[in-house]
Amino acid sequence: MFAYKVTIKLHETDAAGLLFFSQQFKLIHDAYEELLESFGIGFSVMLKKKSYFLPIVHAESDYKKPLFVGDRLIIEVTVGAIGKTSFTFEYRLLKNKVLVGTAKTVHVTISKKTGKKIPLPSEMRKALKKVLSHCERSLQSKLI
Amino acid sequence: MFAYKVTIKLHETDAAGLLFFSQQFKLIHDAYEELLESFGIGFSVMLKKKSYFLPIVHAESDYKKPLFVGDRLIIEVTVGAIGKTSFTFEYRLLKNKVLVGTAKTVHVTISKKTGKKIPLPSEMRKALKKVLSHCERSLQSKLI
Amino acid sequence: MFAYKVTIKLHETDAAGLLFFSQQFKLIHDAYEELLESFGIGFSVMLKKKSYFLPIVHAESDYKKPLFVGDRLIIEVTVGAIGKTSFTFEYRLLKNKVLVGTAKTVHVTISKKTGKKIPLPSEMRKALKKVLSHCERSLQSKLI
Amino acid sequence: MFAYKVTIKLHETDAAGLLFFSQQFKLIHDAYEELLESFGIGFSVMLKKKSYFLPIVHAESDYKKPLFVGDRLIIEVTVGAIGKTSFTFEYRLLKNKVLVGTAKTVHVTISKKTGKKIPLPSEMRKALKKVLSHCERSLQSKLI
Repeated sequence: MFAYKVTIKLHETDAAGLLFFSQQFKLIHDAYEELLESFGIGFSVMLKKKSYFLPIVHAESDYKKPLFVGDRLIIEVTVGAIGKTSFTFEYRLLKNKVLVGTAKTVHVTISKKTGKKIPLPSEMRKALKKVLSHCERSLQSKLI
Repeated sequence: MFAYKVTIKLHETDAAGLLFFSQQFKLIHDAYEELLESFGIGFSVMLKKKSYFLPIVHAESDYKKPLFVGDRLIIEVTVGAIGKTSFTFEYRLLKNKVLVGTAKTVHVTISKKTGKKIPLPSEMRKALKKVLSHCERSLQSKLI
Repeated sequence: MFAYKVTIKLHETDAAGLLFFSQQFKLIHDAYEELLESFGIGFSVMLKKKSYFLPIVHAESDYKKPLFVGDRLIIEVTVGAIGKTSFTFEYRLLKNKVLVGTAKTVHVTISKKTGKKIPLPSEMRKALKKVLSHCERSLQSKLI
Repeated sequence: MFAYKVTIKLHETDAAGLLFFSQQFKLIHDAYEELLESFGIGFSVMLKKKSYFLPIVHAESDYKKPLFVGDRLIIEVTVGAIGKTSFTFEYRLLKNKVLVGTAKTVHVTISKKTGKKIPLPSEMRKALKKVLSHCERSLQSKLI
């Protein structure tokens, strides 16, 4: 399971005193960027060298607890589904081991040249499967 | 129907050249803030004078078209549902009359004092019903 | 004088209850984008069709009054100086006609191809001079 | 010398492909928040328990190199000056040991109750002096 650590910063809160809701989407994307980086397909590589983009076509978040400046979170990232031209990431946000939020992003593979959907590139599919099998093993070890 | 006009700014795009997905959530909240303002319950009033908060417990967006810096959007806001302690807003983003995205936010009413859910304050319920009836009339006039 | 109207949004404030300082830089850039747009050299045109960029090499802000969610501001933009390869914009932020902040950005002209400084393109120089003369006339009419 | 590590995220870049200039201010504030945290006066403590605020009255940045998504930076924070009711922080941004930007923020001490300037609280003055002496020692060790 890929886990990303982050501390809530002042600029991510608002005058109501809490994390502004759209910032949760930014934080999970930060986690996703680190995950891609660990695949060797970080955004700097993808933007310069790859023939595809992975735009988000759907995103959703649930908010379970108020979050404050200085809160230290762990964001767990797992692969939810791998389709022919799309895939899903799922996120769990934890504070002191308590689930404070969840999120999901659905991505499609788009050719940079044509702007049209293309089948998931094999390097990406391989990387996603690796994450998926890690997640399953991690889950099994929790169940045993 | 409440309609909010906005132009995509450079800082809302990313190095892939498009609107960064979390910014869509920020834009719909901007529209929601203007709507609350038109009710006379803008955030400055709510934060200082009201006994309740309206935190978001769920948010989701769909992305239908790539959006670029300088794109001029209209965000239509409607009330989706009014419950006992919660309500839902729905958003449609249009560019040149073409639907480029949709979104939804679910809010609950929380007492500032106790931090617990409370029934929707009557002023808020009244305002939401007004928006709802506007939406229905606007929809009917489109159908006729 | 170019004047840009904006309302402080919730996501621009922080848990201390005020506009987060870096957001003032974002707001003045929004004003600058509208100004460029009025020249016919908006960012969408510049990024796609022009051979140059106008990166910021220096920026500064002063903060004179606390700003809250819902505050309606006017941002006045003037040209401060036009050099051979650079130019300066100056900004005044007003709330109810009271000066609440100032800012300055220094830009250089960079060739997209070489990444090196180049003389200010003539269309840009012409546009800047037009703003400058507007400012002077506007100032004179205030003095008379 | 306090050093803060950070990786440029996609949402911090813009459609020109580089770090958006106002994000540099956000990044240095993130570093400053970690520094305050290390003093035991992090923002969560300050907002809840202290009788003072430390608002920024002036901020400035210089930009020396273009910065891209994925760039790993070190932000060095030092105390520039300690006055009666104000203090200055200075920041150096380094990428692969090359200076890519600098920044400065000037803060004043404001009473939460009156909203007026007050003398720097002694705990804050002590903490700032500690950073200052660290900086001097760090500088001396570089010179020797």
